[in-house]
Amino acid sequence: MRLTTMTDYAMRLLMHVGRNSGRLCTIAEIAQAYAISEAHLMKVTHQLALAGWIDTVRGKGGGMRLAHAPEAIGLGQVVRSIEPDFRLVECQGGGSECQLDGRCRLTGILDGALRAFLAHLDRHTLADILPSPGQADAVMRRVS
Amino acid sequence: MRLTTMTDYAMRLLMHVGRNSGRLCTIAEIAQAYAISEAHLMKVTHQLALAGWIDTVRGKGGGMRLAHAPEAIGLGQVVRSIEPDFRLVECQGGGSECQLDGRCRLTGILDGALRAFLAHLDRHTLADILPSPGQADAVMRRVS
Repeated sequence: MRLTTMTDYAMRLLMHVGRNSGRLCTIAEIAQAYAISEAHLMKVTHQLALAGWIDTVRGKGGGMRLAHAPEAIGLGQVVRSIEPDFRLVECQGGGSECQLDGRCRLTGILDGALRAFLAHLDRHTLADILPSPGQADAVMRRVS
Repeated sequence: MRLTTMTDYAMRLLMHVGRNSGRLCTIAEIAQAYAISEAHLMKVTHQLALAGWIDTVRGKGGGMRLAHAPEAIGLGQVVRSIEPDFRLVECQGGGSECQLDGRCRLTGILDGALRAFLAHLDRHTLADILPSPGQADAVMRRVS
């Protein structure tokens, strides 16, 4: 079972930007900090800005910052806004080829499991996953 | 967020075999009932037999049947036995390139969400998702 790479990177990006709240962060530095591609991060940045989680400033000296306090950025809401869908199996959400489509009890049970998954994430915010200052400094020393 | 096609097909296969408990079921008939590929179903059958959920009988007149009563086949256990892994994000389970690997609090929260997901499935068995006789008869008429 997987979340998309987009959601994975979105979480990491928010963690980095949240840890460096006093300044604008760039895609280049985030790509370096996590050793991931700038091209993917550009897409993630665009989606996070569209969803209202970050603000971006264009041009030389530009970058991004959180649009809300870390305590106001719920992890469940971030995942809901970035994952393209939650069709755990092909038939979930309708439009399936399955002969039992619309009358099968499996989808209802999977819906319940998904609600339990997201409800757990809803109990946490970005503030809960920001690394402590000591941890973050060690990371910065390692990548500089 | 997705489960693999393998788990999707495993659930459907168990539903079909559970509904037809008085006889051996063949891969060909299950492929026809759900309009899915026989090649994929062969792999699923092999995995379900290895995991001990079904018994297979080889040769002419052979096929498969449940190895336990539907009430004894827990959906959480089936999903655990068929999904190749539960690494919701790249770093989960260790061996990641991420600079925060091993000290990041996100993975602990995702582990909790995953436990909530599986705990919900653990409250249900195959018996809960078998179609009622009326439903199954309608399906059989439609595909025959």
